[in-house]
Amino acid sequence: MPEFRKDIVTGRWVIIATERAKRPTDFALEPVENKSGQNCPFCPGNESKTPPEVLAYRVNGGAPNTPGWKLRVVPNKFPVLGIEGDLNKQGEGLYDKMNGIGAHEVIIETPQHEKTFDMLTEKEIEDVLWAFRDRVLDLKKDKRFKYILIFKNHGSAAGASLEHTHSQLIALPIVPKSVLQEVEGSRNHFANRERCIYCDIIRQEREEGVRVILENKDFVVIAPYAPRFPFETYILPKLHDSCFEEGKSYEYEALASIAKETLVRMTKVLDRPAYNIMIHTSPFGEEINDFYHWHIEIMPRLTKVAGFEWGTGFYINPTPPEEAAKFLREAVV
Amino acid sequence: MPEFRKDIVTGRWVIIATERAKRPTDFALEPVENKSGQNCPFCPGNESKTPPEVLAYRVNGGAPNTPGWKLRVVPNKFPVLGIEGDLNKQGEGLYDKMNGIGAHEVIIETPQHEKTFDMLTEKEIEDVLWAFRDRVLDLKKDKRFKYILIFKNHGSAAGASLEHTHSQLIALPIVPKSVLQEVEGSRNHFANRERCIYCDIIRQEREEGVRVILENKDFVVIAPYAPRFPFETYILPKLHDSCFEEGKSYEYEALASIAKETLVRMTKVLDRPAYNIMIHTSPFGEEINDFYHWHIEIMPRLTKVAGFEWGTGFYINPTPPEEAAKFLREAVV
Repeated sequence: MPEFRKDIVTGRWVIIATERAKRPTDFALEPVENKSGQNCPFCPGNESKTPPEVLAYRVNGGAPNTPGWKLRVVPNKFPVLGIEGDLNKQGEGLYDKMNGIGAHEVIIETPQHEKTFDMLTEKEIEDVLWAFRDRVLDLKKDKRFKYILIFKNHGSAAGASLEHTHSQLIALPIVPKSVLQEVEGSRNHFANRERCIYCDIIRQEREEGVRVILENKDFVVIAPYAPRFPFETYILPKLHDSCFEEGKSYEYEALASIAKETLVRMTKVLDRPAYNIMIHTSPFGEEINDFYHWHIEIMPRLTKVAGFEWGTGFYINPTPPEEAAKFLREAVV
Repeated sequence: MPEFRKDIVTGRWVIIATERAKRPTDFALEPVENKSGQNCPFCPGNESKTPPEVLAYRVNGGAPNTPGWKLRVVPNKFPVLGIEGDLNKQGEGLYDKMNGIGAHEVIIETPQHEKTFDMLTEKEIEDVLWAFRDRVLDLKKDKRFKYILIFKNHGSAAGASLEHTHSQLIALPIVPKSVLQEVEGSRNHFANRERCIYCDIIRQEREEGVRVILENKDFVVIAPYAPRFPFETYILPKLHDSCFEEGKSYEYEALASIAKETLVRMTKVLDRPAYNIMIHTSPFGEEINDFYHWHIEIMPRLTKVAGFEWGTGFYINPTPPEEAAKFLREAVV
């Protein structure tokens, strides 16, 4: 019997379609590979093909926008939002619009074109996390911004247009709707029970175990109870913490370690899938709070979103999260 | 300068990314074709490969589940929801779930495998609309159902797994979240202004003209002001009407005509794109009302949904709707 399950934070229902239950090999897998890149704008030596860097980590110094970096952050050459100007909110008859003000940056995670993110060392992944933090703390000084989304598109099925491994961030002058939904869901839970809803989830999941994929001292990785997509995976800090960028330094090391382990397992079980990664964190202004709990969501792109999902906001997921968790938990890597 | 635009009904913001402005030929178009089908379960002679039909239109009579039909409706062989049983709402610790009760049917729109939907005659498309109505009126008798979504996935990029042209319907025991958002947005507008929000939109769009694609006596086709996707298109009845299945009979004829014209133009301009079509209508119980206005949404699948969209609920649209409307309005077919 298929099941409706409700996401406890957002109230979103999903359908776990047991009649269509899918194992990893039932999907039309399209392995993502980084072929050796020619004319890649993210490769060393091609620094002039990107806008000038806003941040770089270099081992032995060296001039900006020259080779020798191990990580580099640049403005997106084709930004979806512009950094200059003000919002200039306007009506247009019935409608509302404003100027597309924001920042759009690219984090080039390694000079090595052929390495995918899961192939980076733990130390390299930790550097990426520090770069996220450095950029967020810098952009937060711009009081026009209310939220920054950090995300990664890996593989063309996940919307990536360049294969050289990179993440992106977009700083926004409004708090996005789906962020507000999570924050409000968490706030309501706290108002009723004086507890963080994610802390409650972590407690229940660790007691039950069926949806736990792995954990270390500081983080736990789970398949959520009501996932929209097969093999959707969350990484959560075990102790309550409402925002990513104010984390303690030892946490980034532990996070890099468990993120790599999670992606290596996913790469093995799903044969190098395309995926999206998003950091969910508190909006600026009340980023230190008792009710919201920052976390990372990983969504392998194995299925197509179709008319039913667009028309209802319901998602049909052919893989129960208990089965997805079991595959990832038991993967031998 | 890119623009933020707000969807007036749902409050959803989109980014019209002018720096990336795309014409039809800038997309990686993947034309959808129906090759002649072998072993297609929807072709005449293969009636036994589907569950027994629940409705068929036949020219000269003939027995059920035998050839001779011009349109056939069957339960989905791999339904996402089951028709038997009750909801049995339950908790699971913190979480909520219920049995996946619902109906999932397939409307096989023609016996001819090689014809795509836009190649059907106006009369054949009108039959499809009548079949939608017949099935909705029948399923509405089952008081467990609160909403029926009618939709079409065309092409594998839009989630179609079989190429023989067909639509689907899914009857649900709960009103989906995105339907509720539209209904509530419309209700609020009516509460403030005593006018239907869609009637207001139609009035403004017909006055301005820049986003109008075409119209006939009863329907108007527009590119919405804040579309999530390039070439997203709405078909709306000009006179206020809150639900699809209670339409007047002459309206289905006019709708079939304008739907075909719209799809023929889209096929021409975007070179046989994959697309999703959804009918947006009122939930059962208050389907006759002054505030909601049923309509059809067509979404060509030209871009991939990526991490930014999943993380924020914001959509980045590289094609301003004014340009999309112009291409479709001026298409010579």
